[in-house]
Amino acid sequence: MSKNEWIPLQAHIVSCASVVGHREHEGPIGQCFDMFDPTDRFGQKTWERAESEMQRRALNLALKKGGLREDDLQAIFAGDLLNQCVGAAYGLMDFPAPYFGLYGACSTAAEGLILSGICATHRVYGLCAAVASSHYCSAERQYRTPVEYGGQRTPTAQWTVTGAGAYLVASGRGEVELVAAMPGKVVEKGITDTSNMGAAMAPAALDTLVRFFRATGREPQSFDLIATGDLGYEGISILGDLLYAEGFDVGDRLNDCGMMIYQRKTQDTHAGGSGCGCSASVMAGYLYPKLKSGEIREMLLIGTGAMMSPDSIKQGQAIPAVAHLVHFRHGIGEGEK
Amino acid sequence: MSKNEWIPLQAHIVSCASVVGHREHEGPIGQCFDMFDPTDRFGQKTWERAESEMQRRALNLALKKGGLREDDLQAIFAGDLLNQCVGAAYGLMDFPAPYFGLYGACSTAAEGLILSGICATHRVYGLCAAVASSHYCSAERQYRTPVEYGGQRTPTAQWTVTGAGAYLVASGRGEVELVAAMPGKVVEKGITDTSNMGAAMAPAALDTLVRFFRATGREPQSFDLIATGDLGYEGISILGDLLYAEGFDVGDRLNDCGMMIYQRKTQDTHAGGSGCGCSASVMAGYLYPKLKSGEIREMLLIGTGAMMSPDSIKQGQAIPAVAHLVHFRHGIGEGEK
Repeated sequence: MSKNEWIPLQAHIVSCASVVGHREHEGPIGQCFDMFDPTDRFGQKTWERAESEMQRRALNLALKKGGLREDDLQAIFAGDLLNQCVGAAYGLMDFPAPYFGLYGACSTAAEGLILSGICATHRVYGLCAAVASSHYCSAERQYRTPVEYGGQRTPTAQWTVTGAGAYLVASGRGEVELVAAMPGKVVEKGITDTSNMGAAMAPAALDTLVRFFRATGREPQSFDLIATGDLGYEGISILGDLLYAEGFDVGDRLNDCGMMIYQRKTQDTHAGGSGCGCSASVMAGYLYPKLKSGEIREMLLIGTGAMMSPDSIKQGQAIPAVAHLVHFRHGIGEGEK
Repeated sequence: MSKNEWIPLQAHIVSCASVVGHREHEGPIGQCFDMFDPTDRFGQKTWERAESEMQRRALNLALKKGGLREDDLQAIFAGDLLNQCVGAAYGLMDFPAPYFGLYGACSTAAEGLILSGICATHRVYGLCAAVASSHYCSAERQYRTPVEYGGQRTPTAQWTVTGAGAYLVASGRGEVELVAAMPGKVVEKGITDTSNMGAAMAPAALDTLVRFFRATGREPQSFDLIATGDLGYEGISILGDLLYAEGFDVGDRLNDCGMMIYQRKTQDTHAGGSGCGCSASVMAGYLYPKLKSGEIREMLLIGTGAMMSPDSIKQGQAIPAVAHLVHFRHGIGEGEK
């Protein structure tokens, strides 16, 4: 294959599930998620354990919805934002399947879907899972300040979603198909403001989208939805401008999982949602059913991750970002299989 | 395929390279590494940046040794121990290839080799890179205390290797071949002592090895070397006992990258080396040439990772571990291609 080409996939989502916190449940698409906990604690003593528990429940629910048992699972691709990715490692350790730990920041769900899609397409594994999560309270105290501190937020700051999404991926056709992938390159354009990660990630999303459109010859107009996850209001506006400058008019097809999950005016979430759990839960809870029903025929999910650490920022380094693209299609119905 | 089966691979290592610090250079296999810096700083202002720089140099060197340019690279699978895996993200961002961030703790090199092997075998990518690193000084201040503090170490504690390894993987036959992989499951047996990670990781190595021997029908005797990376002296002794109890007599075939890299009696490194950079650099610098020459005909590399975080330990959780196995074989010589 030639360099930078997209990866053709022949795989489908068998089932998926989403678990969220109270704020996500109160948002405009709150009724779409499978499970929520009004305390955000999920029965656990710490926020980090609560995050692990969300991953465990999301994967269990996805198996249940697919009529599958944990023994049917052949590989797990998972990650989160916590140091050393402990959300996934602890949350999924009871599942008796090989575990591939990922770190792609907010692009983790897309990264896991791509690797699951590759392994399913080539029948390396019969059934793979992609799982990702984030938790507002564990992220705040790790990246910024503990929630109790009550730090002021800037308008460009995003709100880490308390949520997890799990996807089961198998080869061949199905109701929701993975058609192609365009993995992202690391892009760093000098942004150092961690309260404006949308600006840091938009150029990465641009790079991946432009490579995808040029490699495949597809026009933005041929997709019902181009969903980033998660640039927020700030980043999506930058991406729209950058795409236009490159000659791609995406119009109102462009949307962002971080904009879908919260009500901007009333929920005080500033530039929108972020975190591995944002695109993971929005895709599983809100977009997957639309793909399944055919309301969306074709869409692109572009998981965007900002891969700095608090230490790298303190040491004066800019924010490197990556954007992984997955091309989904409404597939064959139940009767056509 | 049936559950838990090993993954057959048809791929080979095109070239690989290793970059290490002064202590690794002074060790018993110090002359095998491609590059070292007596200051461990690699021209950088911080230890974290030094770690990134080791990854960059290792991948550059691997490309140079293979007679390849960075444009030939089609995908990178990389990770490290730092929070948010910034060692890899910053170190490799100048390479114009899609980037898959991994977190597998000390199993990262093996995880990257498996995913590279899968993508090469199925020709998803023509040329993949697997890269991993660790740095003693960045790891100490993140996991334990800054080096300046001079904390006392227990005899079971391992010494984080300052080193990086990079591997270029392509499909088909070659001088050193990837024959098979057996990815690991997360195993947690209640060990909470972060100064005894060998004990936490040995059961994970056992699980993967036993599954591999049983699935393939291969005997330990049919391998010249079974190298873990990195259980250290403590963990390897436990693994030997556990394997014996399961009916596998590995004898002196069992060795550990963390035992190979330091001189136990004179280098004050206690239970041996650890860190993503340990197996990454030992495999690239010391074992790969033996496989290439035929001194080793067949070997297993079992990357073992302890996936706790300092926070998860403070919160009273035990150490989850994972062990990824790669089966290497001396392949065809230059004249036979």
